[in-house]
Amino acid sequence: MKNPNIAILGATGAVGREMFKVLMERNFPIGKLKLLASARSAGKVLDGHPVEEATKDSFRDMDIVLGAASNDLAQEMAPYITQAGAVFVDNSSAFRLREDVPLVVPEVNPEDVRKHRGIISNPNCSTIISLVAIYALGAISPIQSIVASTYQAVSGAGVGGIAELEEQVRSYAAGKPLQSEVFPYQIAFNLIPQIGSDTGNGYTSEEMKMQNEGRKILHLPDLKVSCTCVRVPVMRSHSISLCVRTKEKISVAAAREAISQAKGCKLVDDLEAKEYPMPLYTSDQDLVFVGRIREDLVDSNALNLWCAGDQIRKGAATNAVQIAQLLL
Amino acid sequence: MKNPNIAILGATGAVGREMFKVLMERNFPIGKLKLLASARSAGKVLDGHPVEEATKDSFRDMDIVLGAASNDLAQEMAPYITQAGAVFVDNSSAFRLREDVPLVVPEVNPEDVRKHRGIISNPNCSTIISLVAIYALGAISPIQSIVASTYQAVSGAGVGGIAELEEQVRSYAAGKPLQSEVFPYQIAFNLIPQIGSDTGNGYTSEEMKMQNEGRKILHLPDLKVSCTCVRVPVMRSHSISLCVRTKEKISVAAAREAISQAKGCKLVDDLEAKEYPMPLYTSDQDLVFVGRIREDLVDSNALNLWCAGDQIRKGAATNAVQIAQLLL
Repeated sequence: MKNPNIAILGATGAVGREMFKVLMERNFPIGKLKLLASARSAGKVLDGHPVEEATKDSFRDMDIVLGAASNDLAQEMAPYITQAGAVFVDNSSAFRLREDVPLVVPEVNPEDVRKHRGIISNPNCSTIISLVAIYALGAISPIQSIVASTYQAVSGAGVGGIAELEEQVRSYAAGKPLQSEVFPYQIAFNLIPQIGSDTGNGYTSEEMKMQNEGRKILHLPDLKVSCTCVRVPVMRSHSISLCVRTKEKISVAAAREAISQAKGCKLVDDLEAKEYPMPLYTSDQDLVFVGRIREDLVDSNALNLWCAGDQIRKGAATNAVQIAQLLL
Repeated sequence: MKNPNIAILGATGAVGREMFKVLMERNFPIGKLKLLASARSAGKVLDGHPVEEATKDSFRDMDIVLGAASNDLAQEMAPYITQAGAVFVDNSSAFRLREDVPLVVPEVNPEDVRKHRGIISNPNCSTIISLVAIYALGAISPIQSIVASTYQAVSGAGVGGIAELEEQVRSYAAGKPLQSEVFPYQIAFNLIPQIGSDTGNGYTSEEMKMQNEGRKILHLPDLKVSCTCVRVPVMRSHSISLCVRTKEKISVAAAREAISQAKGCKLVDDLEAKEYPMPLYTSDQDLVFVGRIREDLVDSNALNLWCAGDQIRKGAATNAVQIAQLLL
């Protein structure tokens, strides 16, 4: 595929705008570029490019469609995209667990891209960031289980999430009452320990993604993951506290060495020098920062670590553009 | 001890002021009340009570001294307090692990108060909040290990921490540059995965407290705790994501029942109704809120849960006043 025609579906959202930005930054070889959105957002102009309403006829001459829309719009448009012969690289969760849809983190399982039948899914943001941080450990000894607690930025709820935190902080400073619409509770100066919906086993849909998607991406059907997902008043980088158990013990030195060499990772790990990943300083970047690597005190075959990465970029837009690059 | 004379050492700090407030709220039967602080803070007046400089002669007629000062001041004054025959209920970490000093959470190990020889230590705030949340599980089956990730409020760094987050948010809203003095990095819209100092094993001093103090309070010398402590932009309640392994499996229903009956706890656990502990709504209260209780997916003998509690109150001031009440 040379100079493919590319459409961004959901171009006006936080992820869609970032996909556009990442394509430009990377000088992605594009034939035609089409920005598509739901009827509500059509008519806007992004950097001189008009945004058109996505319809069944939008994809006829497209080669790759980068999806940054809702599950509903992704599901509605997918048949038209694949019938048009385009590849749908979709960031929604609609197709992620479908057997005929590869779920790809390019640093981890790039070879899975080849198996696609028209749709390739982009994983959940916390899952991408966590797996980029630890896949190099799995190359030393198979990962058996993960206990994860997330610290997820408001950008995970889209531009509306960012605007709500901004607005709440401005209201606070002005002594005005704080309004919550995007989040069920005030997020400024607060934490909300629910992302996604109740799945019936006590875990939220977001929490189950780390196990379900992790199994598929790592090709480890027995991987066990216990996850707690928490929304925090941070703008756009997710952080995750991870306890990773491997089949054989991995020393801290070996883990540091492996992660320092791993594609997509930046090792930032010097506690004495106060160097560790922090979400404020990983924003607007593609790398996942990894640090605080240390032996678990409960299980000698486990390591604890802390990672942070930009949710809109590596957690979504950059990962999708990387998948598109693999298609070239 | 009836109507004891009480001194607060470090009366002008966040915890010292709250000790004063909690004594008043509880109509604590006080003979004389003395507010003491370092030379720097002496001369202030709190609610009509003058603050005196703490000297070796300050404790002569005191029965109980509530300590909310630095480790240094606590260590300097302790001999004068005990020589004067007063009991020192100290919130600093200076004496917590000394064999002749009980370390007490009144809901968990009230009987240990009796063993004191002049000093009783108040545990670390995250440790208190975590143990209040889970001690009822230990009564069903012994707790063997804990994996904890904390979300700690800026109040843990004292009034200066609260003022710094306030000021940073106001500067942000005003478009001014943000200043950091109390914390090594900006805390507004950020997370800092270091609390305390490097202990040499990759863990910080704050992280090791949960294991070291937990062992002493629970009388479980083999308890294993892996902890990750993170400062978050929240004002005054700490939250903790806990994975608790017990010797025998405890069902979610049994855990909920036990925690709902546990002194010091409030069960807030209905994911479908969006009811769970949140730090904004646990502030200025003494109870530890516990929710998100669910079976761990990695280890069938473990439960995951989420708790939150006011760091200045139950995490420090209230716990110390409760210890003083046990002395009466």
